[in-house]
Amino acid sequence: MEYAELANEVSKKSNIKVSKKDIERLVGALQKTGDPWVLADISDFPVPAVFETLNALKDRGLVSVSDSSVTLTENGLLAVESVHPVEDFSCGGCEGRGISLEHFVDIRDRFNEIQRSRPAASHDFDQGYVTPSSTFSRFLIGYERGDIEGRDILLLGDDDLLSIVLGLSRLPKSITVVEVDKRLVGFIEEVAGAEGLDVSVREFDLRKPLPPEHVGAYDTFYTDPPETLPAVDAFVGRGIASLRSPGSAGYFGFTRREASLEKWWGLQRLLLGYKVVITDIIHNFNEYINWGYERDTRAWRLAPVKVEPRVNWYRSALYRIEALPGFCGNAKDYGEENIYEDAESSTT
Amino acid sequence: MEYAELANEVSKKSNIKVSKKDIERLVGALQKTGDPWVLADISDFPVPAVFETLNALKDRGLVSVSDSSVTLTENGLLAVESVHPVEDFSCGGCEGRGISLEHFVDIRDRFNEIQRSRPAASHDFDQGYVTPSSTFSRFLIGYERGDIEGRDILLLGDDDLLSIVLGLSRLPKSITVVEVDKRLVGFIEEVAGAEGLDVSVREFDLRKPLPPEHVGAYDTFYTDPPETLPAVDAFVGRGIASLRSPGSAGYFGFTRREASLEKWWGLQRLLLGYKVVITDIIHNFNEYINWGYERDTRAWRLAPVKVEPRVNWYRSALYRIEALPGFCGNAKDYGEENIYEDAESSTT
Repeated sequence: MEYAELANEVSKKSNIKVSKKDIERLVGALQKTGDPWVLADISDFPVPAVFETLNALKDRGLVSVSDSSVTLTENGLLAVESVHPVEDFSCGGCEGRGISLEHFVDIRDRFNEIQRSRPAASHDFDQGYVTPSSTFSRFLIGYERGDIEGRDILLLGDDDLLSIVLGLSRLPKSITVVEVDKRLVGFIEEVAGAEGLDVSVREFDLRKPLPPEHVGAYDTFYTDPPETLPAVDAFVGRGIASLRSPGSAGYFGFTRREASLEKWWGLQRLLLGYKVVITDIIHNFNEYINWGYERDTRAWRLAPVKVEPRVNWYRSALYRIEALPGFCGNAKDYGEENIYEDAESSTT
Repeated sequence: MEYAELANEVSKKSNIKVSKKDIERLVGALQKTGDPWVLADISDFPVPAVFETLNALKDRGLVSVSDSSVTLTENGLLAVESVHPVEDFSCGGCEGRGISLEHFVDIRDRFNEIQRSRPAASHDFDQGYVTPSSTFSRFLIGYERGDIEGRDILLLGDDDLLSIVLGLSRLPKSITVVEVDKRLVGFIEEVAGAEGLDVSVREFDLRKPLPPEHVGAYDTFYTDPPETLPAVDAFVGRGIASLRSPGSAGYFGFTRREASLEKWWGLQRLLLGYKVVITDIIHNFNEYINWGYERDTRAWRLAPVKVEPRVNWYRSALYRIEALPGFCGNAKDYGEENIYEDAESSTT
């Protein structure tokens, strides 16, 4: 099979740039699983293009599609022989993050307990929250890098409830959340009240510029933006605007599920343009819990097999950035603009 | 103490941009150790600036310097109370890399055996090689990402002997090394002969453009450049020039020991300019074995305490990049130009 030709075909049909190597990876992944969601996870390119590729492979007689899975045909099995094996070598001890989970265990246990009664993910706000150990690891890496204790910390959106972990740790100087979802604002305030945590929560839409009192006021920010370039520009750009001085740091997640490497390049250009530097990109750091509204997403409509995901399949890399002299953020007002969808997105 | 003021002073004296946070981290690290090399390791900013900071702290009566170590004075201990604690949370299982070491164990054992008789690091070529588990992990991550089996692989410089691991694995389609050091060329050829490995080694100075037969001929490259921007441009730029198509990948190390985050920003701009995208930056992935010529380096001359390093202290992040449509590399001829030194370097 000519993988480069297939890559071109899929790129044209999906309007998403995919490489020969992307296609090969998907073909290799088909040896491991027939679950469309796990295939999207392992393949590491945008879901609409993954599903477009499965259609193209079906047209070529390389896969067959049943009610429940995608299977390599005999010809497909022959094609697989020529591609790179797909294996997961991530460390079991740290779930591949490189950060040991054996610190602040009391806080971790308490957080695991508290988050059980959290609000469900809301489709209205393109939410999808991460596993408690992902949230907890964000705290641990922040602590290790000197971004937590005694710091003023801003969370731009917090459906992952990091503010609660930070509050339980009693380490930051201050914890501020701006969040668009009233339910989450209520939940965080309720927990903060019950646990005596010092967390300030404010309802806010990040399409608007940060109010002046938040600009240049924080040492550290965390956010988990929707995956279009305008949305990441808004969320991360606001985060950068909130930072106090060179050395101040920011953390955010970015996927391959809804962002091609071409979009990653755009993101990286955007970051360097704000005069911040990328210090870490940690593959599959964040693991999202299946959000429950799969059937209402574009991904579902495009899926060649209509099965609900059985395991968590939506993961993202963690970016850490640090401000340099001359850094600046984003003060643009997006009004009511829909900045949350592009050709590569599929969870809206 | 005014850390921002101290950061300005050190930036001016050392001609290296350091932030308030860098200084704070060093002050925090002084609670852990008085060993100047371990301090440089933990502090994560360039060695000349770390040592300049120690001098400035001494002038302020915050540290005292003996024949063997740097110690916080009583005033220094008070100053430490206001800074972020410095801890190492890296996972013991994977040495912080996120990649499990429990794969291809036979190859690992054989490599550990073979590398024992390797040539020592040569000061002439600014060499410093990594631990066998660092080299082995480079192979593992490459395999996981689909960059090894059936691939044409180019190593631009190979004092880390990755070519031997790759050869032992028998997985790549071809393995090519260009290396300036005759001793290494000899050693790799000798091992390849004895073990029956298919490795092609060629003596080559990377200040010259790659010969045409190497341009656009590889799926994957690895290199470990000296840490100035011109050198990283030459080494990584040649690597990019060697790549075959979008999706082809490159790996290289870059430190904080000899590169400020300002220089990191320059590196990242340079990479994006070649139309490659950064897919991973893994903190402290590479651990270098003390090279043995410490006493002849600039770092030694600047060191406030003249003690030999007792533990490995020189570590670097691993960058992985992937080529995008329209990528191009570096074909500039640097002649005999010294591209290996700048204000931040200290191991030459």
